[in-house]
Order: sequence, then C-alpha cells, then structure tokens
Amino acid sequence: MNKGQLLYEGKAKRLYETEQTDILFVEYKNSATAFNGEKKAEIDGKGLLNNKISTIIFEKLKEHGIDSHFVKRVSDHEQIVRKVDIIPIEVVIRNIAAGSFAKRLGFEEGTLLERSIVEFYYKDDALGDPFINNEHVDILGIATKAEVEALYELGLKINSVLQPIFEEIGVILVDFKLEFGRDKDGNVLLADEISPDTCRLWDAQTKQKLDKDVFRRDLGSLIEVYEIILARLGGK
Amino acid sequence: MNKGQLLYEGKAKRLYETEQTDILFVEYKNSATAFNGEKKAEIDGKGLLNNKISTIIFEKLKEHGIDSHFVKRVSDHEQIVRKVDIIPIEVVIRNIAAGSFAKRLGFEEGTLLERSIVEFYYKDDALGDPFINNEHVDILGIATKAEVEALYELGLKINSVLQPIFEEIGVILVDFKLEFGRDKDGNVLLADEISPDTCRLWDAQTKQKLDKDVFRRDLGSLIEVYEIILARLGGK
Ligand SMILES: Nc1ncnc2c1ncn2[C@@H]1O[C@H](COP(=O)(O)OP(=O)(O)O)[C@@H](O)[C@H]1O
Ligand SMILES: Nc1ncnc2c1ncn2[C@@H]1O[C@H](COP(=O)(O)OP(=O)(O)O)[C@@H](O)[C@H]1O
Ligand SMILES: [Mg+2]
Ligand SMILES: [Mg+2]
Repeated sequence: MNKGQLLYEGKAKRLYETEQTDILFVEYKNSATAFNGEKKAEIDGKGLLNNKISTIIFEKLKEHGIDSHFVKRVSDHEQIVRKVDIIPIEVVIRNIAAGSFAKRLGFEEGTLLERSIVEFYYKDDALGDPFINNEHVDILGIATKAEVEALYELGLKINSVLQPIFEEIGVILVDFKLEFGRDKDGNVLLADEISPDTCRLWDAQTKQKLDKDVFRRDLGSLIEVYEIILARLGGK
Repeated sequence: MNKGQLLYEGKAKRLYETEQTDILFVEYKNSATAFNGEKKAEIDGKGLLNNKISTIIFEKLKEHGIDSHFVKRVSDHEQIVRKVDIIPIEVVIRNIAAGSFAKRLGFEEGTLLERSIVEFYYKDDALGDPFINNEHVDILGIATKAEVEALYELGLKINSVLQPIFEEIGVILVDFKLEFGRDKDGNVLLADEISPDTCRLWDAQTKQKLDKDVFRRDLGSLIEVYEIILARLGGK
C-alpha cells in the first residue's frame, strides 16, 4: 500500500489516497486545536500518541463486534483506513455532565447523568459546529431517518463497550465525540478517531483530567496525560 | 369571577387566582422585553393589542378543533384561562428561516424551509432558554415521551391551522413559539399566548415585519404593526 495524493488536511489529521480507491492513509499530526481552531499549538508526540491510542480503541471495539474504518496502523503516525463518505454530524455521547452541556443546562460539572445521552452537532467549521436536533438533520438533508437511528444506536453501543474498558483501567469516560460515514455499500461505519482529543477522560480516583481539556484549560502537559492513557490501555 | 391573589408576574403578563382553583385571570402588560430581558420598554397599548390578538387566535383555533387554556376575554387587558401546570419547554415551529435559526445553520433569512420544523427550548430565564433536544428533555425530567410526542403533533397541527389563516390576510407566518401545560386531568393543553410577541409575521407583499422584531431591531412603531395584525384579523 503506497501513500498517494494528499486528499484532505484537517486540524488533526491528513488523509492521503492509495492505489486502492476505497482505502486511505491517515496521518495523525502534532497539532492541537481548541475552540473551533481559535487556540492552536504544535505538540511533539501528540500525533504518535493519538495514533496508538485510537488504534487500540478501534481494535478493542472490533473484538466486541463493532466495525470501524480502521484497517491497521502502519507507522508511528499513520493508519490505513477504509474511505467513507463522512456524515457531517458529530455524534456526542455523555455519561457525566461536563463542558458546554453542564454550563448550558445548569448541571454541576461532574454530575452523573441518570442515563447516557446523545447529541448531534452539525460538522461545519464556518458555523462553529452548532448543536442541532433531528429536525435540523432532516432539513439540512445530511442524513436519512434510518441513518439517524443508526447513529443513536451505534453511539450508545460503542459507549456501552468503551465504558467498562475505561473503568477497568481506572478511567471515567465522561463524554466523547464520534464521526460516522457511509461505506461503499452505503452502510453507516464508524470513522475518524477515538482518542483523548475526542473523549473526556477523568482518573477515577483523583478526577484528574486525562484529555484535551488539559490543553483547552491550560492544566499542564498534554503529552504526560495522553501517555498515561496509552500506558493504562496497555500500549507503549 | 373575581380577581384574587397575584400568583405570578412574568415579563409580559400577570396571573391572578380566582375563586375557582382551576381558573386564572391573565393580565396582559404593556411591557416589551427582548434578548432574555436585556432590552426593556413600556409601550402603551401593547397589552390591549396582544390580549385582543391572542383572543382571536385562540378562538380561531377552537373553531378548528384545537383546544387551549383560553376561556374568554373579560376586559381590555384581561382574559380568563384554565390553570395548567406549564411544561417548561418553548415549542418553536419554523416555516421560513429567520433569527437564530438562520444564523446558526447558515440559511439566508427568508429561505422557505422544505417542511415546517419543530424545536424545543428549555424555559429557564437564568439559563437563557437554551435550545435542547429530546434527550435533554428526558434527562431534565421535564416531559414524558408521550408529552413530547403531543408537543410535536400539536405544534405542527396548530401551524397547519394558523398558516392559512394568516395567508388569507396577506401575512406570512414565519415562525412562532408555543407553551403547553398539563390540565387537571393530565392532558397536554395549549396555554400562554399567541401574539406578535411570540410569532414572526411578515407582510406577504412587502415582507415588512409585523411583530416583536420591530422592537428587537428598532424598526419603527411596535403599536402600528400590532394594530395592522389586529385589524387584518378582523379585530378592532
Ligand atoms: N475513513 C474516512 N474517510 C474519509 N474521511 C474521513 C475518514 N475518517 C475521518 N475522515 C475525515 O478526515 C478529516 C480529517 O480529520 P481531522 O483532522 O480530525 O479534521 P477536522 O479538522 O474536521 O477535525 C475529517 O473531516 C474527518 O471527518
Ligand atoms: N394557563 C396557564 N396556567 C398557568 N401558567 C400559565 C398559563 N398560561 C401561561 N402561563 C405562564 O404564565 C407566565 C407569565 O407569562 P409571561 O409574562 O409571558 O412570562 P415569561 O416572562 O416567562 O415570558 C409564564 O410563565 C407562562 O408560562
Ligand atoms: Mg477532527
Ligand atoms: Mg412569555
């Protein structure tokens, strides 16, 4: 498999074509961004850590019967994945009140929610990824009713697999963001990444933040906490 | 029916008890507020106009088989209504992109939506009435699944009755906000008011704004445009 043309450069990753039309190279960058790109930094080691962490998570999901775009990790910074037509919806699953959710709805940060909840955000940088409801999905024409159902179902299923995996390593899965796409058969497939960039992860004992909030809120070294997550997940 | 104790004073109306526990007096005030109370004014004649306009609309809904809390108008500023336990959800129905919807989702103001859409906002002044989804309704415990369905269904039904009523008088019903409550039997009942304070109404020919946006955006005399609506609805 050879790295071909650069297809797309995002805030955290670069996508390259390969000689196979339905396969892409993903390169995890060292860039950290927050607040829709307003805050930026280059952090040595971040790409490698996210590449390794998301690899482990995609592999664990696979073991639990949840398929994703992930094919294999091929270098420190690179993965091979199946190309999908990304559905422009960020699917957020929340177990504990934190961040914008806590502030907007008046929950104290850290409150355990009675059940896991699902939110959709319209993936559009120019609009700042606004929170949307199912009616908006429909009027924007970005997903069918059946796809919306798949997003809810897969989101909650992935949550129910990931929660105990993190619990076992002393980490609370507070909330996380998923992206899905349509594969070549039109099926909804988990894509993008699952990493401390896209999850809120708290140490179960100390409640220390082990995720991108360390960067967002200037709470210390991002690399140190991402290394804790990688090590606890059994990676190195 | 006698006006008893003041039960609650809101931004636009005062509620009074009566000798009947399930009946209230509503007094329409002359206060105009916008942006969650940040912008305020006293405008002589506003209470009377909204009282008369909402009376006509509740009566027309009744003729079309849609029940509400409205019993009768008893004076220039007062209505008698059935007391309900208000569901703290502002149900917004949109036919044309305008306001926050247009801005947040990147629609040009004035775009006809392919179908009418429903949005929920959590009625909480301290939080600024945040936009919520059905998951939030559930986790906040503010309405049951059956009530949520009733809110969608009633919202769209009221829209389909009001749209032609306004069309006949040369007015476009752009969007509007409804409030519902539980009556003494636990049924979902339309409550609050339907007036140019709670609807976006545009002249069909000139697109002149005939609603509270005149006050929000300093576009001229609120009273003059509310009078146009009352007159076209056949009131005086
Ligand atoms: N399997 C895939 N096929 C096609 N595009 C993908 C796939 N996985 C992720 N993407 C997209 O790759 C882009 C690059 O990722 P990233 O740098 O995280 O972008 P962003 O700046 O949008 O967060 C994103 O638009 C993401 O949706
Ligand atoms: N039939 C009813 N029974 C009980 N409360 C009602 C009824 N109709 C409206 N209300 C409530 O009356 C209050 C006063 O109205 P208003 O001045 O418009 O308040 P607000 O400042 O919340 O907009 C609102 O909280 C509204 O929900
Ligand atoms: Mg991304
Ligand atoms: Mg009101």
